[in-house]
Amino acid sequence: EIVAAAEGLLGGGSKPLAGRRVLVTSGPTHEPIDPVRVLANRSSGRQGHAIAAAAARAGADVTLVSGPVAIADPAGVAVVRVETARQMLAAVEAALPADVAVFAAAVADWRVAEDASQKIKKGAGGPPLLALVENPDILATVARGANRPTLVVGFAAETENVVENAKAKLVRKAADFIVANDVSPAGGVMGGDDNTVHVVGPAGVESWPAMSKAAVAEALVARIAEVLGGAS
Amino acid sequence: EIVAAAEGLLGGGSKPLAGRRVLVTSGPTHEPIDPVRVLANRSSGRQGHAIAAAAARAGADVTLVSGPVAIADPAGVAVVRVETARQMLAAVEAALPADVAVFAAAVADWRVAEDASQKIKKGAGGPPLLALVENPDILATVARGANRPTLVVGFAAETENVVENAKAKLVRKAADFIVANDVSPAGGVMGGDDNTVHVVGPAGVESWPAMSKAAVAEALVARIAEVLGGAS
Repeated sequence: EIVAAAEGLLGGGSKPLAGRRVLVTSGPTHEPIDPVRVLANRSSGRQGHAIAAAAARAGADVTLVSGPVAIADPAGVAVVRVETARQMLAAVEAALPADVAVFAAAVADWRVAEDASQKIKKGAGGPPLLALVENPDILATVARGANRPTLVVGFAAETENVVENAKAKLVRKAADFIVANDVSPAGGVMGGDDNTVHVVGPAGVESWPAMSKAAVAEALVARIAEVLGGAS
Repeated sequence: EIVAAAEGLLGGGSKPLAGRRVLVTSGPTHEPIDPVRVLANRSSGRQGHAIAAAAARAGADVTLVSGPVAIADPAGVAVVRVETARQMLAAVEAALPADVAVFAAAVADWRVAEDASQKIKKGAGGPPLLALVENPDILATVARGANRPTLVVGFAAETENVVENAKAKLVRKAADFIVANDVSPAGGVMGGDDNTVHVVGPAGVESWPAMSKAAVAEALVARIAEVLGGAS
């Protein structure tokens, strides 16, 4: 009761997502090459985890599907841990239906066509040639699926043409919003505390100022509540 | 003084590696494919970090060269962080000379021939073919180098023919000892707390019982002190 009262005081008692189911993905995926090697994306999971935490604070019933990360589970969130893109898609589909889905994970676009059951040895034949196949597109699959959430938010980590790529992705993936950011190494976004995002929606592009990933999460959840409020 | 006294009581005041320089490598390496993707080895760094910590407790002057890990730096150790195999070799060579080198890192055998400066886009051309080239062999380079430490210890993470592979590696790499373990997924060694190792040396194979990675580290450091003691 004391905690609830304190939360009421701190948060102004505002629970704009009360009664809503929110699904968030976060972290990288690891695609096995053999038992000791993986193809991986760089992603700390900080932004996705912060969004899950912010949605829970806003009163939502939150499921977080996370790839391998080294950060703590957010409070008040059901966490499902996965490793590969295919496992992430299965966990996402199992967590539907939801009112909102936020796909913040850095899913590997490709996996190795056939991963080896034993460690590949360095041999006289030289390095192996890794034949890749495309992974399922989780965002597009859910956005075009029968169980489509009311609001589908994708992320786009780019190193060039950030806003143009995000606009094309919005249409191609049938998402409602794409949150795009520049992850060029010089920017320090990956693994860092801050983020500078462009929110691309049907009405155009909002370029938000640089802020902490926690602040981006709060602002994004507020924006989601606003859109859902109008839609309910 | 209280801490020193307690350490004296706990450790029996025994500093068998006092005055010795010990170099330890730990963790995986990450080989960039493009700014957001990497080829990586699975390795938590727990075993290598435990060895560095145990060597420091035994009185050695320890340098730990570590790939990207999510665990804390061991106490009383100089830590050099690297990402790729080539960076690890450069950091190792900069840390020589040493009396002992323990190569516990899971170094990627291969890297992508040319990593892309911008994020590779999913395109109509299908998945990229990753052409790999061999990384430098850090263990063999140091064991056969002009600055060779008195004692060179390698690791062999295998999923089959563990001892046979380790025996061949001992000769091929010119190491004094190879610590070999079975990292098949069913065993739970990778990322776990325990380890079951075979120590392959000139006099044969010692198969140690399953124990914690901390205990493996203590036993290995005791074995190193024993061999060095005889050699000095």
